[in-house]
Amino acid sequence: MFKIAVLPGDGIGPEVIEEGLKVLSAIEDKYKLKFDVKKYPFGGEAIDKYGVPYPEETKNACLSSDAVLLGAVGGPKWDDLEGDKRPEAGLLALRKSLGVYANLRPAVLYPPLKEASPLKNELLQEGLDILVVRELTGGIYFGPRGIVAIDYGFKAYDTEVYQTSEIERIAVIAFEAALKRKKKVTSVDKANILDSSRLWRKTVEEISKRYPDVELNHMYVDNCAMQLIKNPSQFDVILTSNMFGDILSDEASQLTGSIGMLPSASLREDKVGLYEPIHGSAPDIAGTKKANPLATILSVAMMLEYSFNLLDAANDIKDAVNKVLEAGYRTFDLGKGIILNTQQMGDKVVEYI
Amino acid sequence: MFKIAVLPGDGIGPEVIEEGLKVLSAIEDKYKLKFDVKKYPFGGEAIDKYGVPYPEETKNACLSSDAVLLGAVGGPKWDDLEGDKRPEAGLLALRKSLGVYANLRPAVLYPPLKEASPLKNELLQEGLDILVVRELTGGIYFGPRGIVAIDYGFKAYDTEVYQTSEIERIAVIAFEAALKRKKKVTSVDKANILDSSRLWRKTVEEISKRYPDVELNHMYVDNCAMQLIKNPSQFDVILTSNMFGDILSDEASQLTGSIGMLPSASLREDKVGLYEPIHGSAPDIAGTKKANPLATILSVAMMLEYSFNLLDAANDIKDAVNKVLEAGYRTFDLGKGIILNTQQMGDKVVEYI
Ligand SMILES: CC(C)[C@H](C(=O)O)[C@@H](O)C(=O)O
Ligand SMILES: CC(C)[C@H](C(=O)O)[C@@H](O)C(=O)O
Repeated sequence: MFKIAVLPGDGIGPEVIEEGLKVLSAIEDKYKLKFDVKKYPFGGEAIDKYGVPYPEETKNACLSSDAVLLGAVGGPKWDDLEGDKRPEAGLLALRKSLGVYANLRPAVLYPPLKEASPLKNELLQEGLDILVVRELTGGIYFGPRGIVAIDYGFKAYDTEVYQTSEIERIAVIAFEAALKRKKKVTSVDKANILDSSRLWRKTVEEISKRYPDVELNHMYVDNCAMQLIKNPSQFDVILTSNMFGDILSDEASQLTGSIGMLPSASLREDKVGLYEPIHGSAPDIAGTKKANPLATILSVAMMLEYSFNLLDAANDIKDAVNKVLEAGYRTFDLGKGIILNTQQMGDKVVEYI
Repeated sequence: MFKIAVLPGDGIGPEVIEEGLKVLSAIEDKYKLKFDVKKYPFGGEAIDKYGVPYPEETKNACLSSDAVLLGAVGGPKWDDLEGDKRPEAGLLALRKSLGVYANLRPAVLYPPLKEASPLKNELLQEGLDILVVRELTGGIYFGPRGIVAIDYGFKAYDTEVYQTSEIERIAVIAFEAALKRKKKVTSVDKANILDSSRLWRKTVEEISKRYPDVELNHMYVDNCAMQLIKNPSQFDVILTSNMFGDILSDEASQLTGSIGMLPSASLREDKVGLYEPIHGSAPDIAGTKKANPLATILSVAMMLEYSFNLLDAANDIKDAVNKVLEAGYRTFDLGKGIILNTQQMGDKVVEYI
């Protein structure tokens, strides 16, 4: 029996998680499965209750589970807290404690949602199907940092740091993923300026020799930010660091016009994974029933696929989502159609499973 | 007599600089002015001749000039050189030696070029007129760095570092610029993760108190990469660090569809400035006469305005460029119209001056 720790979190997190769990139950019924599902406090919710974003109890549960399903964290309420007491610090500690160094962020254009993309239609003729592979437990997110008083005011610093082994293992993930896709890896760095990027580039080159069937090209991060808009269909797998991946994956997902649709998986060597929608906690629409639960529902599908190897069940969910869209059902963020609220969209997906 | 050091550089650099100088002569003739213009080796060209990208002679000339006009640097030929021997190292040393900490990068949609923008037309109804104010002589571009051997492979690091005074002076530039525009500053950082961003945000808040008429908002860099695409007309002035500014200004300029049109200025407290097109050296089209010289020509206009206070002359150039576009003349990169090559476009602008 697979054990799943569920962290609803803040803002719209609990609302979209409810729908994800609804779909998970539907899968249990259909396949006569039983998952061990328990919710734990995390993020701002945990700060309010326990004074810390990632309480011991939650951590123990996550570390002994087969998968963690997360809603979203953060909100203006906790924005003035000090760095290590914020909801985001909990997210970083969660990722680090699980050791899930490989963040997979697919940016896919759903054909029925073409009109919701901000790009001109002629740029979308070949569709959009990019997988951003972002390093998640290293780089400037975790390097030495500090703020020190100096003669006039303060000096603050953060350190981008990578070592060969960290770059190797994330590069392997990207090349393996590319083998199952269009066999192209674009490694993004700023090797014309940064030493860490030079090591990144050299190491990726080395790993690429093990994958003669995968085409590798290198791109500077500023150019990649342009190329994503100019000619997005040139990309298959984008391999990059924690910081650049944060920026580029948000940009790529916005291009699809369907950020409310995009799930993500964070993985390590074994099958344990962290699954969450790409979107944030959207405090402005929390409680209005306008949140799109599809990214969370598709995150459940990724969990079934990557952590539990239940491929049929995962495909059932993906098919159901496609059918719901084709039938014209939409949430508020997806533009014209038969508009459903959060719960109705969850019900509709269950109906099609 | 104003002294201008001209650094044509690499790739299409010399070709577009030629047209910029052609337009500068036209201004000399029209206004009975005389500029002291001399060219100096820089970038890859200087590496080939002297083994260094920013030779002493060039440096002395730049430091004793009223303005520096730069084409572009870099190319595959020099990509395998070590970090501090590359053309880009020369660019960093140039910026640092001049102390031009304020990089102004306007991203403007020229109405006749609307079709060249990758964005759907409904997103462009209010036009696009964003000024990215990028800190240029600090941050991770100049912080401590290194690559060290460890047990397995290497560890490489770069340091993002900012002090209060550096943030204050660039914030002042952004607020002053906003006063002359739509009175809105969006300060972009990653304050939910980085200590340097927290100091950035706090310092910008402080400076904003001196500008009660300017509206300030803060945005995380990942969200900004999304918002630029989702709703670009929400932005007036974007204030950000060296690294984030590098990425976001390229993204913003691509949105206009007219990156070949966009000039930039890098300034310090006095009137001395460095002027260059935003685009790079484009080695792939060097020598084909396809390069668009308008970004360089408009950089000359910025130089006349900011360094020499010759506002009429600057406006003459801007008007001429607008008229040339309205008359349907285009370079290769700008889409449909009467296509001119690099030299013909320079001549055409001179004709309209
Ligand atoms: C909330 C924040 C800390 C987080 C990050 O920067 O990693 C988010 O932007 C993301 O991309 O998951
Ligand atoms: C060439 C490179 C060093 C430079 C930078 O990163 O600053 C360029 O991308 C720019 O934006 O001017």
